[in-house]
Amino acid sequence: MRAGVLSAADLVDRALESIAALDGPLNAFVTVDAEAARLAARRADAERAAGVDRGPLHGIPVAVKDIIETAGMTTEMGSAHFAGHVPGQDATCVRRLREAGAIIVGKTTTHEFAYGPTGDRSRNGPSRNPHDPARMTGGSSGGSAAAVAAGMVPLAIGTDTGGSVRIPAALCGVVGFKPAYGAVPVHGVFPLASSLDHVGVLAGTAEDCGPAFRVLAGQVPASATQVGSPRVARLVTDAPPLVDPSVAGVVEAAFPDAEEVTFPGVAELYQVYAAIQGSEAYAVHADRVARSPHLFDPEVLDRLRHAGGIPGWRYVRAAEARESFRGRVAALLDRYDLLALPTVAVPAPPIGARDLEVGGVRVPVRDALLSFTSPWNLAGVPAVSVPAGAVGGLPVGAQLICAAGREETLLAYADRVRAVSSRAPSRPAPPRGEPR
Amino acid sequence: MRAGVLSAADLVDRALESIAALDGPLNAFVTVDAEAARLAARRADAERAAGVDRGPLHGIPVAVKDIIETAGMTTEMGSAHFAGHVPGQDATCVRRLREAGAIIVGKTTTHEFAYGPTGDRSRNGPSRNPHDPARMTGGSSGGSAAAVAAGMVPLAIGTDTGGSVRIPAALCGVVGFKPAYGAVPVHGVFPLASSLDHVGVLAGTAEDCGPAFRVLAGQVPASATQVGSPRVARLVTDAPPLVDPSVAGVVEAAFPDAEEVTFPGVAELYQVYAAIQGSEAYAVHADRVARSPHLFDPEVLDRLRHAGGIPGWRYVRAAEARESFRGRVAALLDRYDLLALPTVAVPAPPIGARDLEVGGVRVPVRDALLSFTSPWNLAGVPAVSVPAGAVGGLPVGAQLICAAGREETLLAYADRVRAVSSRAPSRPAPPRGEPR
Repeated sequence: MRAGVLSAADLVDRALESIAALDGPLNAFVTVDAEAARLAARRADAERAAGVDRGPLHGIPVAVKDIIETAGMTTEMGSAHFAGHVPGQDATCVRRLREAGAIIVGKTTTHEFAYGPTGDRSRNGPSRNPHDPARMTGGSSGGSAAAVAAGMVPLAIGTDTGGSVRIPAALCGVVGFKPAYGAVPVHGVFPLASSLDHVGVLAGTAEDCGPAFRVLAGQVPASATQVGSPRVARLVTDAPPLVDPSVAGVVEAAFPDAEEVTFPGVAELYQVYAAIQGSEAYAVHADRVARSPHLFDPEVLDRLRHAGGIPGWRYVRAAEARESFRGRVAALLDRYDLLALPTVAVPAPPIGARDLEVGGVRVPVRDALLSFTSPWNLAGVPAVSVPAGAVGGLPVGAQLICAAGREETLLAYADRVRAVSSRAPSRPAPPRGEPR
Repeated sequence: MRAGVLSAADLVDRALESIAALDGPLNAFVTVDAEAARLAARRADAERAAGVDRGPLHGIPVAVKDIIETAGMTTEMGSAHFAGHVPGQDATCVRRLREAGAIIVGKTTTHEFAYGPTGDRSRNGPSRNPHDPARMTGGSSGGSAAAVAAGMVPLAIGTDTGGSVRIPAALCGVVGFKPAYGAVPVHGVFPLASSLDHVGVLAGTAEDCGPAFRVLAGQVPASATQVGSPRVARLVTDAPPLVDPSVAGVVEAAFPDAEEVTFPGVAELYQVYAAIQGSEAYAVHADRVARSPHLFDPEVLDRLRHAGGIPGWRYVRAAEARESFRGRVAALLDRYDLLALPTVAVPAPPIGARDLEVGGVRVPVRDALLSFTSPWNLAGVPAVSVPAGAVGGLPVGAQLICAAGREETLLAYADRVRAVSSRAPSRPAPPRGEPR
């Protein structure tokens, strides 16, 4: 666009056409506002013609998870509780995107209230994996991942409380990045669990995440980041459940020069995460559960009720355990620049599956999806998932962690991983219609 | 002692004699180590003779609440769970006292695990009010308050999670001071509720609290503090329950020049306090409750079990409400240097009482004791109770609050209150033996 070869109007038209052509079977979008997007694109082009350049997002079509408020555009949180809800104001992150010239084309399918990593329980139905529409996108930012993976938009915004950006990124074969806790304001983002909620971005490459991150965090553009040879630890944790051996092999091969570091005590963090996330989530929804339980998806309601029964003293102990874990992570990130591990223990499970076999053991799907990502929400450190290969034709993600404030180094290195790995599936063929 | 008129050995002997003469009916002490105290006193005198002056606490007898660890001296937490427990190390606050030359003469009766403001449930029986041994000291630092009020020691150390220093100070007619949250390390102090626990001091005057505070906080001695004319707000809150009208009258008269300020929204803080304190307390005791419930006092066990049932989401909401209250307190302490209000709504109730009448309404004794003090544990700001008068021959305390870091101003002003009030009962006559 800077060279005058392409206009924002062209790009937005392509995005809208692509959504129209591909989204039927994928259900990545719950709302598309073509008219507003075309208007904004024309305005962006007029500005550029007048010599105004708002930066690298100027004229770029962006999709926003439907848990994030957009002024004048329906925002339903994936829930009947918010059917037809039209916010009066943009969330801070949306406002920053618009100020940077980005064009919001629509809102993407979210697991109801972002309360689930499977991405298949939403008022508007499950989002579907572009690599196999019978399979989950993962969630809760499933629509954002599918929209980027299918090439409908180059960039999408999501939220990540236990992995909700990284999990669908891994299962759909795109890059999903959550900056450090607090780096991007959550004002206007419907809360899931306030001490764990992060705003994140999904894009085709880590390089593309950089400008969006800087805009969302309200930072001045970074100067060229020297990556050099970061000290990378490939973590071998006791995270439950066991990781699929093929997935482990792909991630191991993606970091041939990393030092293998055993990091125990991760298994118990899953209960720590559950106690904190559940208690904080129920604090948000207690009144809705009491007043209008019938408006919840039944599975979400069941899970909320269970969460409401977690005792306060377990929350207190979990908060203590989190502090201790943060200390251990800080010590590890003093010794290593980056930590590498799988993003998700398995490739995308079928939509609706609630348990599966991992290394010969039957485990709940939610545990298999969350166990490698949720510790880094407890720690509050930046984390990115990058495509690292494939198993059975389905994408596998590798996860990289760094210390807060070192996001630029993380993103610069993450793209090297992508370059090293030659087994990442390329953009999928257009989906073949509804799965059987 | 600096003038050579008095020795530490003399002072400690007087304290020990006074304890021997007075403590039978009062039960302020659970452990007295006369031999160790006399040895430490001789050492303090020898040091002074050799030209070493450790400061204002050099040679001063001090009593320590039995929830605070003392190396080689039994520390039972008021509980059969710790019968005969002899710690190997001093709590940080005790170590600082000893390094400042203070002489630990013994350990004072605490409500079991400091879990109760009545001071009448302890493995070693209730502490008794020197003004009327049939009445409560208040708690949980009841023994420390009684020991100072009866003149057995000039200084005692306590802990304050919801008022446990200030309440017994008010009911026994002495000064009780809790510095800001975190100002005195809690290492070696058995936890009650970790986000609310404070170490505090009890003495005859606020002036006497100053040197102890500086030692406990690890500060260099303060230079002369100019109080000037602080802006004082006399708070009229909706704290439950209503305050006894006679108590209100005494406190009002103690601050004739204060501006009356209505401060609503305090009533609901009592539930906020209960949710946080209960959840944190049960997190400490859950394993003991499961393993050996019979070792608890039955009332303490009942209260713990109730606390264990508080849901996590209520803890989360309480933590949010606390944050909002902290903001309101900070705003108020921008406008006023000091906030004044009653310490306790009623004079000392009879030992064992569990409800009483306040302003014509029947209320639980614990609520009547805690409702004016516990908000300042939520806020974490310094608070002191000073004797302000009497009702029916029983002491009434006035409470003063300031911003964190302004403890010296608080203490300097608190002694003015004492001087203004002429109705505070003087030191009680030696108690007349066991109550009927």
